[in-house]
Amino acid sequence: MLRLRALFRIGFLVTLRATTVLSHRRACPLVSLTNSLYKECFSGQASTMAQSIKYLGQEEAQQIDEELFSEYGFSVDQLMELAGLSCATAITRVRLGISPRSVSCNDWYCPRCCEMAYPTSSLVIARPSLLVICGPGNNGGDGLVCARHLKLFGYAPTILYPKRPNKLLFQGLTTQCEKMDIPFLTEMPEAMVVDKAYNLVIDAIFGFSFKGAVREPFGSILDVLKKTTVPIVSIDIPSGWDVEQGSTDGLQPDMLISLTAPKKSAKHFCGRYHYLGGRFVPPAMEKKYQLNLPPYPNTDCVYQLQ
Amino acid sequence: MLRLRALFRIGFLVTLRATTVLSHRRACPLVSLTNSLYKECFSGQASTMAQSIKYLGQEEAQQIDEELFSEYGFSVDQLMELAGLSCATAITRVRLGISPRSVSCNDWYCPRCCEMAYPTSSLVIARPSLLVICGPGNNGGDGLVCARHLKLFGYAPTILYPKRPNKLLFQGLTTQCEKMDIPFLTEMPEAMVVDKAYNLVIDAIFGFSFKGAVREPFGSILDVLKKTTVPIVSIDIPSGWDVEQGSTDGLQPDMLISLTAPKKSAKHFCGRYHYLGGRFVPPAMEKKYQLNLPPYPNTDCVYQLQ
Repeated sequence: MLRLRALFRIGFLVTLRATTVLSHRRACPLVSLTNSLYKECFSGQASTMAQSIKYLGQEEAQQIDEELFSEYGFSVDQLMELAGLSCATAITRVRLGISPRSVSCNDWYCPRCCEMAYPTSSLVIARPSLLVICGPGNNGGDGLVCARHLKLFGYAPTILYPKRPNKLLFQGLTTQCEKMDIPFLTEMPEAMVVDKAYNLVIDAIFGFSFKGAVREPFGSILDVLKKTTVPIVSIDIPSGWDVEQGSTDGLQPDMLISLTAPKKSAKHFCGRYHYLGGRFVPPAMEKKYQLNLPPYPNTDCVYQLQ
Repeated sequence: MLRLRALFRIGFLVTLRATTVLSHRRACPLVSLTNSLYKECFSGQASTMAQSIKYLGQEEAQQIDEELFSEYGFSVDQLMELAGLSCATAITRVRLGISPRSVSCNDWYCPRCCEMAYPTSSLVIARPSLLVICGPGNNGGDGLVCARHLKLFGYAPTILYPKRPNKLLFQGLTTQCEKMDIPFLTEMPEAMVVDKAYNLVIDAIFGFSFKGAVREPFGSILDVLKKTTVPIVSIDIPSGWDVEQGSTDGLQPDMLISLTAPKKSAKHFCGRYHYLGGRFVPPAMEKKYQLNLPPYPNTDCVYQLQ
């Protein structure tokens, strides 16, 4: 029964993906139906939270990041591990146009019903292949951690990591993925190949430190991504976007996972899913920067903002 | 309604704790009722898993640990973060003698019903105070990470950390806890004070590397713990136990959280809850050492073995 349902889901996904995703990626502002159902499902709580949460400017985001290391004594390894785990967890909740699981809930985007909507039991039916594109900095590191956890969750990630920093941490993260039998591509495939081979692309190219022009090979990679129809998940910032202003002709991801707190550009995000991850902010820091973070449920490491 | 229920739970806990915990800590082998209900709830799946999972000897556990760093390129920071997070997550699932939440399930130990049985909404009613005792090595580090996550989950941990290694990682972990307003004790309180002040003691003193005699101040600390009636949660190994043989007159924790894979002494564990944590073992390593790890559910970082 489970397999039959999984089969139906994958079939549904393959048939409708291009049109569904395209319509969502082009349609902006947010689909009003989604919002109304979301509010109904959460009795307005999450909606209120989403309104009051702070959207950080680039300088403030950098200041918070710096303070986590210098004042709170965190190591990059620790926070990157938690951030990457958040991203992998949020990704498992994507439904990718699958019909509702629970008969009592009509909300396609309800996190309670969405959890593991793409279960490991579907592995036999369809290979849940994902492409994780990692940039040269910490956003790329988050991507590597995310890929490793996704592999442990039963997905089949492939990594593109064209510019690798010469640091022990990143070398270790790469080794971990290699030893977990995660394949690494040597170059970016064409848009048509990406659409055919992968269910999802994870954009871990640039994060909140990004400024100025996009350098190669990432300019070409982003050009390819703009031509794909496969859903894109962006970690922290859609790559190439101005961290505060967003971008009118840039990537339009289907999902955004804001880490620590959303950045100002997230207000321009027009995709379907917006998650908050990185449950490590000390209460004193939250208070100092008036972040107004929503309450993560139970022991969960992600919170669905939209 | 929620607060009333929480109040009832706390009242129930205070009244029954000493007798319930004592009976569980002295009663061995495992209560047969628990097992039968557990099997019923899980259709035998977990039980089968628990039978086939490998129990590691000390040397093999050390070999696996070493290999994770040398061959797989993990840093201690990374694995300690995931291990400590597992421990904090498992602890949130302790019900501490609370009556069943779900009317359709009669199993007091069913993890599905147990999740967040000690919710943050009870904070106003009773301070969910915990004492985390950290040893001089990596087990102590797991304890510090665990305490930090417990604080983020809404608990009120206090730490005793009498022997602090002069390493950057441990200094950072201590700073993080201090900056999260987690109080540090300067000495071990008497047994009566521990029973009165804390709902739970987390034993993060010695792990799988422990050998030989227990040195001070940990000998005295363990003597106090043996006199307490408050439930004890041991991380990886009940402190003072022989890693393979266990101990007849040592600590008898209420809960054991085995990390990576259970050690041989876990077969002598007579408490109520046995969790597996540390969801980071690469499949190739699992195969090489024939660990037969159970399938962690969804994105969960713990698995209830008993």
